[in-house]
Amino acid sequence: MSAGLSIERYIQMKAEQVDAELLESLPGIWNVPETLRESMMYSLLAGGKRLRPILVLATVEALQGSTEAALPVACGVEMIHTYSLIHDDLPAMDNDDYRRGKLTNHKIYGDAMAILAGDALLTHAFYSIVQSYRSYGVPADKIVDIVEDLAKLAGAPGMVGGQAADMQGEQGITKLEELEYIHLHKTSDLIVFSLKAGGHLAGATAKQLQALEKFGTNIGLAFQIQDDILDLIGEEDKIGKPVKSDEKQQKVTYPYFVGIEASRDKVNELTEQGKQAIAAAHFPNPDRLLELADYLTQRDH
Amino acid sequence: MSAGLSIERYIQMKAEQVDAELLESLPGIWNVPETLRESMMYSLLAGGKRLRPILVLATVEALQGSTEAALPVACGVEMIHTYSLIHDDLPAMDNDDYRRGKLTNHKIYGDAMAILAGDALLTHAFYSIVQSYRSYGVPADKIVDIVEDLAKLAGAPGMVGGQAADMQGEQGITKLEELEYIHLHKTSDLIVFSLKAGGHLAGATAKQLQALEKFGTNIGLAFQIQDDILDLIGEEDKIGKPVKSDEKQQKVTYPYFVGIEASRDKVNELTEQGKQAIAAAHFPNPDRLLELADYLTQRDH
Repeated sequence: MSAGLSIERYIQMKAEQVDAELLESLPGIWNVPETLRESMMYSLLAGGKRLRPILVLATVEALQGSTEAALPVACGVEMIHTYSLIHDDLPAMDNDDYRRGKLTNHKIYGDAMAILAGDALLTHAFYSIVQSYRSYGVPADKIVDIVEDLAKLAGAPGMVGGQAADMQGEQGITKLEELEYIHLHKTSDLIVFSLKAGGHLAGATAKQLQALEKFGTNIGLAFQIQDDILDLIGEEDKIGKPVKSDEKQQKVTYPYFVGIEASRDKVNELTEQGKQAIAAAHFPNPDRLLELADYLTQRDH
Repeated sequence: MSAGLSIERYIQMKAEQVDAELLESLPGIWNVPETLRESMMYSLLAGGKRLRPILVLATVEALQGSTEAALPVACGVEMIHTYSLIHDDLPAMDNDDYRRGKLTNHKIYGDAMAILAGDALLTHAFYSIVQSYRSYGVPADKIVDIVEDLAKLAGAPGMVGGQAADMQGEQGITKLEELEYIHLHKTSDLIVFSLKAGGHLAGATAKQLQALEKFGTNIGLAFQIQDDILDLIGEEDKIGKPVKSDEKQQKVTYPYFVGIEASRDKVNELTEQGKQAIAAAHFPNPDRLLELADYLTQRDH
């Protein structure tokens, strides 16, 4: 199935599929206030790499399921990711003016509309997920499993909890465990969701779902530690925001606790263990999933 | 089934059931940051009347279904209502310091935590809904119908769209249709959801679901027009916020366009037509639902 396509080209092709579906899945046909719809679309189409939707699709491929039927779920996770960025960027939160080199949502539409666009994207994610049932006949009990996972992994015990801990942590994180809690919930949980959703859609066994959870937890944490490393040493033009912005805000990062070299070792160790979990769970076609692990955690931007 | 209980006593009893379930349904057992959980609970338990959950339960009773199995869905709609209040009260939105005589969420926990508590409650509503399947065996396809309805009626084409139009309308609503759009989406849509969710849970026919939609649209609009009327003429201690606060902010209300008397006539007409829709759809036990219509639209506080 890998068929010689480079992982970069694979990601590009899948991202285009997701982009096309996202344009269709937006509530354009409904009677939605124009500015709200514009604000939602602005952030949804602001150049994200669609890594989470691609993880949904790659998991479905690893299990030789239907990627077409998975597209609405893949779009749903991108809506969740996008809403979280819009809300995180607000003046009341991280107060960021730029993201991926573009003005943040509230800088263009104002704080009120940015809050509402985030709320609307969060809510619409669940609508999108249901369309895998409505349009492609995915069984209702699988959709319910996916809805439950998302509500948990994106909610208070998951992503929102991670962001809340991050906000409070600005008064001073003193332990590595606190930083890991933030990384695991702010970043890993939505990656775990993407993988498990792909698993639910393509009929993963309980053992395979467990492996996907382990894999996602590990590469999510590795991804975030790599982000911390890049933030310290990266080049400004590569990541699209001023380098060391976290450090300027005196934000504590992984290398702060253990140094750059031990952080790099941790990234490699987490990635390897994650890949081993997948290898042990007998997926019929796991190659892209394993390549994505390296792509995400070994990136230099 | 009415068995002589006054509607006030009925509401009180049902609200107590909902309150007990809400306490259980909060993610207290999970590893949630303490302040986030406190902030969620503060608003969820801030003295709401539980009118929307009661509409879920009353609809289930009208169809002689299981109210026990409906409780997680009833709690879900209260979480949505609560999140919408937290976000609406933010300084970036309506900037309200008090609600129901208590400090608003952001006045106690700060803007960032209030945004996150709202996000978490919105997300957790979907988790709660799934528990009607997980704990009470409601069929998965009914849960999917309910998730889809909520995502639509609480999202961009529904409640969030209504709030967005309201925000933009502060620059000047010039037509009655614009105000009706706001009322229908900000208020009616979640009431329609509550009724339809009860219908899905208790096996309503397509005709009964249509009647519930008409009933909800009408009593939602009537409820909101009544709110506009009370805001103009009510007594401060009865509604717990300064009277004419809307007028002070030069907010346009229903009576502004047609006067108090015609507004009252409209409330009565909408209520009667809503009740007639229910009467025509042959519910086995519709009395409480019809009483609730009067209670909601004829209230004086």
